[in-house]
Amino acid sequence: MKKVTIILAVLMAIVTKTIGQQYQPNWESIDSRPIPEWFEDAKFGIFIHWGVYSVPAWAPANEDIGVYAKYSEWYWWRKNEDSAAGKLFREHHEKVYGEQTKYQDFVRDFNVRYFDPEQWAKVFKNAGAKYIVLTSKHHDGFTLWPSSQSWNWNSVDVGPHRDLCGDLNKAVKDAGLHMGFYYSLYEWYNPLYKTNLEKYVDDHMIPQMKDLVSRYEPDVFWTDGEWDHASKAWKSEEFLAWLYNDSPVKNTVVVNDRWGKETRSVHGGFFTTEYDLVHDQKGVGEISRPWEECRGIGTSFGYNRIEDLDNYSTSDELIDLLIEKVAGGGNLLLDIGPTADGRIPVIMQQRLAEIGAWLDVNGEAIYGTRKWENAPNEPQNSTVFYTQKGNDLYVSITDWEDKPITIEGVKKVTNINLIGYSGKVKYTYSGQKIVITPPALSPATNPGNYAWVYKLSNAISN
Amino acid sequence: MKKVTIILAVLMAIVTKTIGQQYQPNWESIDSRPIPEWFEDAKFGIFIHWGVYSVPAWAPANEDIGVYAKYSEWYWWRKNEDSAAGKLFREHHEKVYGEQTKYQDFVRDFNVRYFDPEQWAKVFKNAGAKYIVLTSKHHDGFTLWPSSQSWNWNSVDVGPHRDLCGDLNKAVKDAGLHMGFYYSLYEWYNPLYKTNLEKYVDDHMIPQMKDLVSRYEPDVFWTDGEWDHASKAWKSEEFLAWLYNDSPVKNTVVVNDRWGKETRSVHGGFFTTEYDLVHDQKGVGEISRPWEECRGIGTSFGYNRIEDLDNYSTSDELIDLLIEKVAGGGNLLLDIGPTADGRIPVIMQQRLAEIGAWLDVNGEAIYGTRKWENAPNEPQNSTVFYTQKGNDLYVSITDWEDKPITIEGVKKVTNINLIGYSGKVKYTYSGQKIVITPPALSPATNPGNYAWVYKLSNAISN
Amino acid sequence: MKKVTIILAVLMAIVTKTIGQQYQPNWESIDSRPIPEWFEDAKFGIFIHWGVYSVPAWAPANEDIGVYAKYSEWYWWRKNEDSAAGKLFREHHEKVYGEQTKYQDFVRDFNVRYFDPEQWAKVFKNAGAKYIVLTSKHHDGFTLWPSSQSWNWNSVDVGPHRDLCGDLNKAVKDAGLHMGFYYSLYEWYNPLYKTNLEKYVDDHMIPQMKDLVSRYEPDVFWTDGEWDHASKAWKSEEFLAWLYNDSPVKNTVVVNDRWGKETRSVHGGFFTTEYDLVHDQKGVGEISRPWEECRGIGTSFGYNRIEDLDNYSTSDELIDLLIEKVAGGGNLLLDIGPTADGRIPVIMQQRLAEIGAWLDVNGEAIYGTRKWENAPNEPQNSTVFYTQKGNDLYVSITDWEDKPITIEGVKKVTNINLIGYSGKVKYTYSGQKIVITPPALSPATNPGNYAWVYKLSNAISN
Amino acid sequence: MKKVTIILAVLMAIVTKTIGQQYQPNWESIDSRPIPEWFEDAKFGIFIHWGVYSVPAWAPANEDIGVYAKYSEWYWWRKNEDSAAGKLFREHHEKVYGEQTKYQDFVRDFNVRYFDPEQWAKVFKNAGAKYIVLTSKHHDGFTLWPSSQSWNWNSVDVGPHRDLCGDLNKAVKDAGLHMGFYYSLYEWYNPLYKTNLEKYVDDHMIPQMKDLVSRYEPDVFWTDGEWDHASKAWKSEEFLAWLYNDSPVKNTVVVNDRWGKETRSVHGGFFTTEYDLVHDQKGVGEISRPWEECRGIGTSFGYNRIEDLDNYSTSDELIDLLIEKVAGGGNLLLDIGPTADGRIPVIMQQRLAEIGAWLDVNGEAIYGTRKWENAPNEPQNSTVFYTQKGNDLYVSITDWEDKPITIEGVKKVTNINLIGYSGKVKYTYSGQKIVITPPALSPATNPGNYAWVYKLSNAISN
Repeated sequence: MKKVTIILAVLMAIVTKTIGQQYQPNWESIDSRPIPEWFEDAKFGIFIHWGVYSVPAWAPANEDIGVYAKYSEWYWWRKNEDSAAGKLFREHHEKVYGEQTKYQDFVRDFNVRYFDPEQWAKVFKNAGAKYIVLTSKHHDGFTLWPSSQSWNWNSVDVGPHRDLCGDLNKAVKDAGLHMGFYYSLYEWYNPLYKTNLEKYVDDHMIPQMKDLVSRYEPDVFWTDGEWDHASKAWKSEEFLAWLYNDSPVKNTVVVNDRWGKETRSVHGGFFTTEYDLVHDQKGVGEISRPWEECRGIGTSFGYNRIEDLDNYSTSDELIDLLIEKVAGGGNLLLDIGPTADGRIPVIMQQRLAEIGAWLDVNGEAIYGTRKWENAPNEPQNSTVFYTQKGNDLYVSITDWEDKPITIEGVKKVTNINLIGYSGKVKYTYSGQKIVITPPALSPATNPGNYAWVYKLSNAISN
Repeated sequence: MKKVTIILAVLMAIVTKTIGQQYQPNWESIDSRPIPEWFEDAKFGIFIHWGVYSVPAWAPANEDIGVYAKYSEWYWWRKNEDSAAGKLFREHHEKVYGEQTKYQDFVRDFNVRYFDPEQWAKVFKNAGAKYIVLTSKHHDGFTLWPSSQSWNWNSVDVGPHRDLCGDLNKAVKDAGLHMGFYYSLYEWYNPLYKTNLEKYVDDHMIPQMKDLVSRYEPDVFWTDGEWDHASKAWKSEEFLAWLYNDSPVKNTVVVNDRWGKETRSVHGGFFTTEYDLVHDQKGVGEISRPWEECRGIGTSFGYNRIEDLDNYSTSDELIDLLIEKVAGGGNLLLDIGPTADGRIPVIMQQRLAEIGAWLDVNGEAIYGTRKWENAPNEPQNSTVFYTQKGNDLYVSITDWEDKPITIEGVKKVTNINLIGYSGKVKYTYSGQKIVITPPALSPATNPGNYAWVYKLSNAISN
Repeated sequence: MKKVTIILAVLMAIVTKTIGQQYQPNWESIDSRPIPEWFEDAKFGIFIHWGVYSVPAWAPANEDIGVYAKYSEWYWWRKNEDSAAGKLFREHHEKVYGEQTKYQDFVRDFNVRYFDPEQWAKVFKNAGAKYIVLTSKHHDGFTLWPSSQSWNWNSVDVGPHRDLCGDLNKAVKDAGLHMGFYYSLYEWYNPLYKTNLEKYVDDHMIPQMKDLVSRYEPDVFWTDGEWDHASKAWKSEEFLAWLYNDSPVKNTVVVNDRWGKETRSVHGGFFTTEYDLVHDQKGVGEISRPWEECRGIGTSFGYNRIEDLDNYSTSDELIDLLIEKVAGGGNLLLDIGPTADGRIPVIMQQRLAEIGAWLDVNGEAIYGTRKWENAPNEPQNSTVFYTQKGNDLYVSITDWEDKPITIEGVKKVTNINLIGYSGKVKYTYSGQKIVITPPALSPATNPGNYAWVYKLSNAISN
Repeated sequence: MKKVTIILAVLMAIVTKTIGQQYQPNWESIDSRPIPEWFEDAKFGIFIHWGVYSVPAWAPANEDIGVYAKYSEWYWWRKNEDSAAGKLFREHHEKVYGEQTKYQDFVRDFNVRYFDPEQWAKVFKNAGAKYIVLTSKHHDGFTLWPSSQSWNWNSVDVGPHRDLCGDLNKAVKDAGLHMGFYYSLYEWYNPLYKTNLEKYVDDHMIPQMKDLVSRYEPDVFWTDGEWDHASKAWKSEEFLAWLYNDSPVKNTVVVNDRWGKETRSVHGGFFTTEYDLVHDQKGVGEISRPWEECRGIGTSFGYNRIEDLDNYSTSDELIDLLIEKVAGGGNLLLDIGPTADGRIPVIMQQRLAEIGAWLDVNGEAIYGTRKWENAPNEPQNSTVFYTQKGNDLYVSITDWEDKPITIEGVKKVTNINLIGYSGKVKYTYSGQKIVITPPALSPATNPGNYAWVYKLSNAISN
């Protein structure tokens, strides 16, 4: 009897090990891994751009220089760039800081004095976000954790003198949310990167990535800055094989598609869009993988202190955006830019709170849903969006109109209700078509502003 | 003939002089001056607390230490105060800045780098505000204009190196709004004030006040810090006689009631309340003069960087507050606290924009109206408020309910409409009583959120 | 009996009052007061220029722009001056600090962190100095004591947060030296000074001067910055009458001659020269009063950080200077410029220590002596100097030559010795003429370098 | 014929390569290289400790805590050290900078604003120094040149934003002096050093050393911080083989003996002493190699701002020190500590100038001389020192005494003169013994203070 036990144990070990190393360091194998379901169910995450660039916290928000040139986190690069945007950055820099001030000098004012990770986590949770992605290192190479590879250019040695990744990681997980890290593969001005890519990858980048994963066990590993080199040069396949086979988060971690200049919308985990751009513009319908749109609440990812109210998206726009992306099968990773002294600007808190309030009522039409494959080809400016969960269909209306709504291609439903409204919803059914008459909502019975959701129970066949 | 001309000239001179000096330096005479009508018509002003205290920009927003201890502009005083609040201020100060940093050291970081007075004025105008009151000098004695009496303790000599009063004055007036200044009579730590009050008043305070008035010709002169001494000691009557007789703004200027420890709600121009407190709590109905409530959007007047969303009043609350104060015959002076680098925090911009949007629709129920003297004694938590303009009555509803509204003591109106709504409003009239049936507003026809106004045309007899 | 007592008491009071007020507020009376003897006996004092200007601590030491333009304490003025020097100051300022930095902004770095008044006093005592004169206020108006008239522009409110006058006063007196203060009558940019001289004098200047005297009881009151106005405008006579009649230092205090644009070398206490200039160039022999030469060890009074060794006078030059001035009947007030962090630059310590070492040996030829009225008219570049004390004559030789020295107009002496040398000194006497043969000093017997003194005992008749 | 040419070419290549690689990477071979003669002839060099530590520029100069704890350049380490010295450093740090300030934060104030390398070179040249050794990197790892291995922790990326090694290298060489660099093998807190020595050596240290040598072609490579590991671990032999065989300075470069914990006074180039300590205390006579004593002018190598005059060696002491070391066969590397704003403290300039003035007269007794092997065993406190050059013997007297000087073991000289003195020097000769009668120097004929040199021409046999 004992022998059998031993044999079984050995067999199990072999199986376990085999399972543990089921992914090979090549894209075919890597791509075969299903994305953990929690990610597709989560729908809404919060992106955080925070670093040395949060000190100048400036970009020309109101100039007509393209989307990217409004990113404050590119301050160092733009300041050196021979371009129209570069000129604006330089003019600002010289006027405010003087030519002799260098980007690295900003680090002393990155003091995060009022950083309260528990309060941040509360804000995120109340926003209805399910996961967080923090810039552990942006293109400037500055790390928000005590990375041995970035001596004297990390948040413990200089500036905050604090492990920002570690502190936020704990608070976010304690709040029951998923924690993730953004990590830039390249570093604009790192001499090692510029002179010896392979050494940079082997001695600097890969050790940092493994350190991050091992220390903090993130559920999202969100790379960027990959465009200079092919994934082979970055050794992305090897890293991902390690991540999927051997890392402590091998079962839960989700990655994106930024692993080499040829990989966006082709390889990796979920696909990414950014202000609707970046990836090869296939129609959303053609994307074969879970995907995620990221953008700021304003015009920048990192904090831009000169953004005024006009530069911020309204709550209405943001909620509509979330609905649109989720209806298209995607997630929304909405970015905030905390200040150098560690606070989430209150206008961002306000936007997040309004999204959270809407999700409190209507979250069932978002979380855990999937794109409705029978959705009609709506025009660009449609205000009707569909998601499904099980046999139920959710129809989200982003602009209320007092006229009937027609939904085609559905079964005879067992019920229709307007989420958050206790009154009856009248509808007719004929020929797989439902026509809903919007109920007479008064300001007193209206479940909320911004968007309304009809739930069509059992509208979809198994 | 010539003689007559001379006699006439002499007579005219006497008359002119008499008219020019119609106010005597005593309260009876001063109080007899009617408050210029523009002020009562204006209803909504914006208060600005900005100064050296905007650099630490801190107060214990979430502690249970009373309303006043949350004012960040009292940082210097609190830090030295033997009290529970004082302890909190000291703990913060020592942790963040170190014991050796003194309040005056903050001035170097009051840089107002991004101060754009035209943009501020635009924000104010879009908010629907009609007048602005800027702290030309708070209790710390620091002046926002180049005051000769405050050498090296004013915004041109140190800190911003800029005339903030002058720059904002111009922009506000260019935008068609009234400009005013807050001015603290006392200065906590000015040695002259502490040792020789009369000299302080004669050589420092009065010259500063006259300088402010003469340079910038403000329409509001808003004093404070009067509580240590009687108005005689401050020579307030003399100053006001000068202001009303001889100053360049003698016809337009409005002042408040903070001119000596005995004057609040008794003497001066309009009476003031502050977070509903401060003045002797007569019922609003008993106040014999125009009055004005002031308070912050959050818990502080000066910027408090640690205030989170929870600390800010919502747009709904602020609009309701405006309605309530105006219905009570008062104005609302809503305070904002700009940052040390010269920006209006975007959350404040957002609140102001929402008030402005509501006023865009409903402003006629606010501007130029007066308290309806026949208004019923509503309970404290009433959601119905009344204002009148000519023969018309405005009934503002701060919480929509789908049930009839009864208004007593009115004539048979010629029409009732819901402002911003094109549909008909049904009502019945009998025995000086009108009963309105709220129309069926849908999200598509609802003219706005937060509050709704019925206009009852010709409801009031001449 | 009682009556007599009363009468006597009254008489005594009258007498006391008369004595107490023996000086009238007019120059004739003021000038009649003899200068307290301690001052003429002291011979060697140390001047200290220390203030906000010690922060930039810069002047163009090596440029050919005149003596005064090398004074670093004039930084603020020069920076604004339309002159060749002004251009240099501006170029430096803009390059190092940027145009937007104002002079007042320097105050934050005037931290005096390492200021140790006892150590300073020890340095002064070891230098052989008998009195100290500290800039209590220079032309920038910044006071080194907590002056009520200079709120927020004094060393306790801002910058050091410390009473520098008080701390040094105590240490200097504890070391047995006389303490004094420099005080600038005018203030370049004080608005009160610029617009209302009389008020400035009455409310600002006179109160400050009396405050200084009453608080710290200085033995020297050293004014400057008097040149814009006559002494009447400054009310100098009144102040001096108070100082001489009623102040706590009426018996000991010494003042200089800078009390109005007409007073240098004419009125006041001792007369002043500055780098041999400033006062009306009468020959030293014609000056009717004790006088004092002041100058820096280098080219500036305030610290100038770019002064290199070449810019500093050598110990030899300084000792020769002291000898020359004392022989001419004057005192030497040698200036040092401490650093913004409170240290006496070690090169200055070194010069002072060498002077002190020389005085340790030869001090009897300096302290308590007077000009020898029979001294021959030596040529400009003479290396032989005379002082007398009682009947003894001291002959100081600033450059040793191996040839006989002839001294005329003396009695037959009772002895001649070389101070610090135990060997005999050979001489001959005939016809009121003494011829000294210099002794054979070897490096082992040489009492010192720099200068040598022969004492001729009883060379002078009573 | 062609064949022969080819054969010759091959042979030449082999020979060249052999010559080029004549040193093997083992101590026996390394040690066999003669030290380039320029170094032994130079005698006097200037050491420069300059870096981030020049910002706090502090050590407890007057405390009884041992020689090493007074080195300001150890600030970072001491602050963390559990020792009596550590306590003093911490107390200072917390009082002056506050606990939250970290060592790395000092870099922003290392601004070298007034650094003028040409002026430095002039000071060095006038001091009579023949070579300069600058701390290219101290134990804190901060490099004074743009080292790729120290990204964002070097003087171009942060702080000065300037290549200090390069700028000084040029100026020193232009002045005709030899330039050298100090380089610390270890770095206290470099994570790579602490976790992976071999990688640190291969990827960080060796590349930095080769970079330094290749960029600036120094004539001295002065290592330190070697004590944690044996030379094998540091791969010192390999580096030295490269330096001696392949580097651009293979013919001229001189190194010291700090290449591993076993190498001091055993292997390498010249041997080193430090405040007479450090190396195994063999008598000076037993040292088999050229050697060099290093020390500060004061008690620290890096600038210590609280050092007062008492902490500085006098010119007399320094000149005596130079004479003593040279007489013992050594060099003197005298250290200066420039300030964070780029100046050589004037007291140091003064000391150097006095040494230079003495060398101007007496340099022939120093430069190019060698230890006189027949010198008697003088007692510790002897004031007579010997050097030889060719057949001439120099006898240096550090304290003048008016009594005969006896020199034994010499030939009958052809002449004796006192350098700088034109008079005759009397002497007697008998039995290989010369007795000199010191001439009667007067202050007028004395060639200088501090030390005097007799030159005994042809006192030594070939």
